[in-house]
Amino acid sequence: MIFTSDNAFGVSPEIFSAMERVNRGGVASYGDDDTTIGLSSLFADLFERDVAVFPVATGTAAKALSLATLTPPYGAVYCHENAHVNFDECGAPEFFSGGAKLLGVSGTAGKIDPDILSMRLKSARVSVHQVQPRCLSITQSTEAGGVYSLDELRRLTAIAKEFGLSVHMDGARFANALVALQCTPAEMTWKLGVDVLSFGATKNGAMGAEAVVFFDPAAAGDFAFRRKRAGHLFSKMRFHSAQLEAYLKDDLWLSNARHANEMASLLAGGLVAIEGISLSAPVAANEVFARLPVETFKRLMKSPARFYPWPNPADAAEGYRLQTIRLVTSFATSRADVDGFLALAAG
Amino acid sequence: MIFTSDNAFGVSPEIFSAMERVNRGGVASYGDDDTTIGLSSLFADLFERDVAVFPVATGTAAKALSLATLTPPYGAVYCHENAHVNFDECGAPEFFSGGAKLLGVSGTAGKIDPDILSMRLKSARVSVHQVQPRCLSITQSTEAGGVYSLDELRRLTAIAKEFGLSVHMDGARFANALVALQCTPAEMTWKLGVDVLSFGATKNGAMGAEAVVFFDPAAAGDFAFRRKRAGHLFSKMRFHSAQLEAYLKDDLWLSNARHANEMASLLAGGLVAIEGISLSAPVAANEVFARLPVETFKRLMKSPARFYPWPNPADAAEGYRLQTIRLVTSFATSRADVDGFLALAAG
Amino acid sequence: MIFTSDNAFGVSPEIFSAMERVNRGGVASYGDDDTTIGLSSLFADLFERDVAVFPVATGTAAKALSLATLTPPYGAVYCHENAHVNFDECGAPEFFSGGAKLLGVSGTAGKIDPDILSMRLKSARVSVHQVQPRCLSITQSTEAGGVYSLDELRRLTAIAKEFGLSVHMDGARFANALVALQCTPAEMTWKLGVDVLSFGATKNGAMGAEAVVFFDPAAAGDFAFRRKRAGHLFSKMRFHSAQLEAYLKDDLWLSNARHANEMASLLAGGLVAIEGISLSAPVAANEVFARLPVETFKRLMKSPARFYPWPNPADAAEGYRLQTIRLVTSFATSRADVDGFLALAAG
Amino acid sequence: MIFTSDNAFGVSPEIFSAMERVNRGGVASYGDDDTTIGLSSLFADLFERDVAVFPVATGTAAKALSLATLTPPYGAVYCHENAHVNFDECGAPEFFSGGAKLLGVSGTAGKIDPDILSMRLKSARVSVHQVQPRCLSITQSTEAGGVYSLDELRRLTAIAKEFGLSVHMDGARFANALVALQCTPAEMTWKLGVDVLSFGATKNGAMGAEAVVFFDPAAAGDFAFRRKRAGHLFSKMRFHSAQLEAYLKDDLWLSNARHANEMASLLAGGLVAIEGISLSAPVAANEVFARLPVETFKRLMKSPARFYPWPNPADAAEGYRLQTIRLVTSFATSRADVDGFLALAAG
Repeated sequence: MIFTSDNAFGVSPEIFSAMERVNRGGVASYGDDDTTIGLSSLFADLFERDVAVFPVATGTAAKALSLATLTPPYGAVYCHENAHVNFDECGAPEFFSGGAKLLGVSGTAGKIDPDILSMRLKSARVSVHQVQPRCLSITQSTEAGGVYSLDELRRLTAIAKEFGLSVHMDGARFANALVALQCTPAEMTWKLGVDVLSFGATKNGAMGAEAVVFFDPAAAGDFAFRRKRAGHLFSKMRFHSAQLEAYLKDDLWLSNARHANEMASLLAGGLVAIEGISLSAPVAANEVFARLPVETFKRLMKSPARFYPWPNPADAAEGYRLQTIRLVTSFATSRADVDGFLALAAG
Repeated sequence: MIFTSDNAFGVSPEIFSAMERVNRGGVASYGDDDTTIGLSSLFADLFERDVAVFPVATGTAAKALSLATLTPPYGAVYCHENAHVNFDECGAPEFFSGGAKLLGVSGTAGKIDPDILSMRLKSARVSVHQVQPRCLSITQSTEAGGVYSLDELRRLTAIAKEFGLSVHMDGARFANALVALQCTPAEMTWKLGVDVLSFGATKNGAMGAEAVVFFDPAAAGDFAFRRKRAGHLFSKMRFHSAQLEAYLKDDLWLSNARHANEMASLLAGGLVAIEGISLSAPVAANEVFARLPVETFKRLMKSPARFYPWPNPADAAEGYRLQTIRLVTSFATSRADVDGFLALAAG
Repeated sequence: MIFTSDNAFGVSPEIFSAMERVNRGGVASYGDDDTTIGLSSLFADLFERDVAVFPVATGTAAKALSLATLTPPYGAVYCHENAHVNFDECGAPEFFSGGAKLLGVSGTAGKIDPDILSMRLKSARVSVHQVQPRCLSITQSTEAGGVYSLDELRRLTAIAKEFGLSVHMDGARFANALVALQCTPAEMTWKLGVDVLSFGATKNGAMGAEAVVFFDPAAAGDFAFRRKRAGHLFSKMRFHSAQLEAYLKDDLWLSNARHANEMASLLAGGLVAIEGISLSAPVAANEVFARLPVETFKRLMKSPARFYPWPNPADAAEGYRLQTIRLVTSFATSRADVDGFLALAAG
Repeated sequence: MIFTSDNAFGVSPEIFSAMERVNRGGVASYGDDDTTIGLSSLFADLFERDVAVFPVATGTAAKALSLATLTPPYGAVYCHENAHVNFDECGAPEFFSGGAKLLGVSGTAGKIDPDILSMRLKSARVSVHQVQPRCLSITQSTEAGGVYSLDELRRLTAIAKEFGLSVHMDGARFANALVALQCTPAEMTWKLGVDVLSFGATKNGAMGAEAVVFFDPAAAGDFAFRRKRAGHLFSKMRFHSAQLEAYLKDDLWLSNARHANEMASLLAGGLVAIEGISLSAPVAANEVFARLPVETFKRLMKSPARFYPWPNPADAAEGYRLQTIRLVTSFATSRADVDGFLALAAG
């Protein structure tokens, strides 16, 4: 009963097998192998247009390299105040960009409030005294378990374009959002104005494989140099590329994400049926944020179930009578895990 | 017949199996799993002392993070002029350190000449106008296929200590050097004054696993923050740690390296027996630098064998009558590969 | 009638004369001259203890170098959300520190709210995923024209010490605060726990001279290297040091500041006596933030007087019926300037 | 008898007076004043074309900001191995550029050997594993007292353009070279292919004033942001601009440089007339590198004359029977200083 994070789980069998398949003989290293070269057409098909695609191994690298390519050292990246890039990467975007500034924008359910974003951008001025707005980073699905609708995304990207910002999408949980919205990858990205996507696979069944996708291949610019220089060009690249290939094959990525979302939905449904438990945010993808009576919380912490308490100002305001927790489901979460947790919660 | 690089090969079966074994259930992510935690005692046993050990996935990261921990932005790292850190990492050490300076020292067989090093350090002065000597980086085995003897290492580390420099060893091919010298890991490192080791496994049978080893655990300082911030902390760390565990188990790493060295030795022996072929450097580990008549070189380039021509000023000086090539053997190089190549070379 | 900024004015005659006096003959460059060497004892006397003092020429440099010395690349600097270091230096602290993070804390009159600071620090955790709290930067007097009382400062530094943060004081308008509080330099700094002070002179009569003061000389560490490397070590340093010497001599700095504060006080008193004009913040030093009826504002903008409109959410909330402006006085602001402006404002 | 450096001297009276003249009243700060705005047309006239010109206060800043604008973090700057940017700036170019690499090229009299440069560039390859050649930095006059002829410069810039490098000229002693060559500023710069010039005034009579000149104004790009962010935008900019204005007025800069060169020429002529003294390099501008019998050297070191011994491998090779010294003359060096030194040297 592990609900700490989707990255607490291992690797989908299909992905593991794919790595085994490429473990034969000698091939060109550093990405000049056929598997890696083949990713270009795979991702072009997926997104219905030519793209430049670069495999890396961690989400931190995918995001920080993307932002550093889009933002000069004196530039500003606007993102949600709780966005991973702002809060959970130990300053990686600042490091990779040479000191660019992340500016957090507030908003409910982890979603950037478009009015606040717009107001902030209006008040920015062209002046050497301030960092200059250059990029908007949107997390889909959000750090608070939310999923932006296409209309919500369109509103944000329109504001970005109005003020000359490029748009980055942090897609650490891209598949979970996609199956939630039931749209195509193209509809959720470049058709709305997304310029660069950090495409996550690790949380959804890969071992350590992400891809940075530039929808305008020419804009990739010096990405390859930045990747090497940051130690993220792998010599035995075939193993990373094979993960991505298997991830996309036969829609494994979508069925993995669909399963995770369904488990979250079941979990949420079961929890709210229990007296005294509520959700602090609606469940849109594979994360459940639930508020428990503090006694229930304490009991669960001593149980074999694993999960994280989550900071929630409302809990403090109400004297910690209730405690918010985060439960993350994955491709590997079983129905039995969910039922087991619900039984524990019900006491 | 792949002799381009030892990283052109895949993964040792034992290492692959180990990754499969840890692909079960949910465990703590980001290195809080038992496999990763167990590395401390494994490496302590290996090096006969307490160490701080940090797995990363590429040699570039291992080296650049090590050097950045040892060297402030205004510091200088002395290394061989052809050292990977100086010439083949796209400026990664400069990036990670915030702009420290790599100062190349010349010397034959890829080995730093101790007299030149000493002279260079003597002429450096404490002055805000110059970057300050802080670190010596020694590659063992060297980029030119050489292996420093323990006495040669001792001489270099003594100079480093005399001038207050910390000592980093780039051990991308650490195992190959170790079996060549027939000494213990401790004898080749901290007993001689090495402070930090980039311990390579990728070139010798792992998929993507290196370890940074601090012989004084207290000196690791902020390494963990630097690693995260650079995107080199893996969420599913167990898979990297399992590689390292299997690499060390039953001396797999040593038998892999021994095999690679033997293949290089056989290859070198066979080549020099062919009329007109000589070695440009003695063969000490798993790299052969051979000088071929240009006709032989051209013939081999058209053959199915794969290898790189290598820049050698002597070839230019003699009007390119001879061409130097580099042949790298690995744990996966077969006797048949060697014999096949020798047959092709003999014409 | 220039009220745009205190840096719109030139140089105090006494300071100019001092530069002329040192413009004789050849002396050692880069700060090895007697005038520069003499600064140590001057500042030691001023602060009643041994200090390490480094002249630089701009406030940006003074602050960014201070913060970079106190904060590692993965560290966080807490400051007021409107602090110059956070908002008006084009990301200089991020650049100099290698990408540290500035975390803005809110509070009225440009003063950090101690409760919010404390809460923020309590919620920070030791984790490689987040930047780590390392430094508190306090601006005295504040960017909103306020002056922290000694008790207010004491409360902030106590919180900093409780959480292990070093304390930086941005003293771009140090003298103005000092004369407002009528205390000694020691009482306003190290006796309260300030570790490093950016001591400003430029805004108060120098040409371009600031000093970074380390109250623990040993903590200056590598400051001298960082200063050189950033291009802030001046070859003809005597001219910068002479400015500082003259600035302190015969309390010129205090009389300059006292005059500026008095002019601000007069201006504020005159403004509030005019129907419809109020202050948006109490006047504590040499800045006046006044709210004018929009017609008055428009009339003044067309007049020969020079000043800046200032963003104030309250103005927006009330439909811009009122407009806030900032008026800064200096050592060179005359009584006639003040009277002239008041006459214009009165219409 | 100060011959340590041209920056050991103070400020030309004409330049000092100009600073006094602008010390009146309040003007716009941060370079929006008339004096600063006027620099554009002054430098356009000087160089016979539109330019973008940015005043800064130190040579370190001028050079490092120029190189950072021309070179990405993964780029390489080729320069003479003894160039100030490579050896005497404590790594400033690496800092400002985010870790670009300075690659030293050898050559006599401080001049880059064009054949070696060409060979080095030919051997560089487009590969993510290596930093990429982006810029050539030429010091005129050189750190060894030499002056490139126009033909020599043309040969270097032609090589740069052949390989796609931009060209930076470090003109810390630009005026001294110009009067030596008796050509126009345009002929020594953009007409030969120089893209960006660090125009030095400090060593030749200013207090602290340099200018960065972009011959293609559009190429200045983000220079203004980089300057601010590095703390090199001065609030009371008028004083820096006034220095530059006075420096150029009535050819003060040329007469200052002519005088310095003449003093160097006299000094050199007098020294070689003394038995046992020779020059280690021909005297082209305002620096004299002389080899003295060691007894003479020791005697002079104890005399009131001030100068620096200079490293010269030839001295070591000959057992330090001779010692090389550097003597720098300036606008303020008098005939009496020269005669006095010659008398001391003659013994």
